Amino acid sequence: MYINLDLQSTDPIYLQLRNQIVAGIAKKELALGERLPSVRSLAADIGINLHTVNKAYKQLKQEGFILIHRQKGVVINPEGIPQADEEYKHGLSKSLNTLIAESVCRGIEKEEFLKMCSSLYKEYELSEGDHNE
Amino acid sequence: MYINLDLQSTDPIYLQLRNQIVAGIAKKELALGERLPSVRSLAADIGINLHTVNKAYKQLKQEGFILIHRQKGVVINPEGIPQADEEYKHGLSKSLNTLIAESVCRGIEKEEFLKMCSSLYKEYELSEGDHNE
Repeated sequence: MYINLDLQSTDPIYLQLRNQIVAGIAKKELALGERLPSVRSLAADIGINLHTVNKAYKQLKQEGFILIHRQKGVVINPEGIPQADEEYKHGLSKSLNTLIAESVCRGIEKEEFLKMCSSLYKEYELSEGDHNE
Repeated sequence: MYINLDLQSTDPIYLQLRNQIVAGIAKKELALGERLPSVRSLAADIGINLHTVNKAYKQLKQEGFILIHRQKGVVINPEGIPQADEEYKHGLSKSLNTLIAESVCRGIEKEEFLKMCSSLYKEYELSEGDHNE
């Protein structure tokens, strides 16, 4: 799996890293139980600060995406990613509402918005198909 | 229009304020050209720091939602909110992709996700209906 950071972006680096690991899990490029590089080695590989990798890993751990063992190192949660509960859905709905409010102001109609979501979802469905072959 | 801030939330206050003003415009509770309170008076009304209101207003100005006149004060952009361009759509797609990747990991199927978006969009369509009466 490749990590692609945009140093010009206004999104903080740790968040870009967190988002790409989540996308990697969603696309099954990263399997449950798979090992991730240590903080030190990932920081060296992609040329960013130790603390940045640490911050991303800490958030991923808190969100249930990874486990951090003192001995086994960093692994994608082998028991699976915690499934959506009411709290997650509430937060998701709030985030979507923010995007939708701005999109309404900027003249994006519901159909266009749903089409965008639908085609983004397809990328993840394809990777599930690949996985079943 | 009521401003409802959640001081317990992890979302910064200035962003909550920015989001609520955008939602107010999307719902047509705030009309184009309508005056908003000055930084000072809004800060006093809702009991938050001047700098917080200032930060929200600055971002809204930069995004084209409001104008800040030295004399006329703060108004919702009377010429209309800048419509979605390729840059906006690219950013929207990135934000949606982040939400979708996590939702895929947490077992939210495409249909459920689209239904959430669709019902959130409805709130804005209703307010347009009200406006036409």
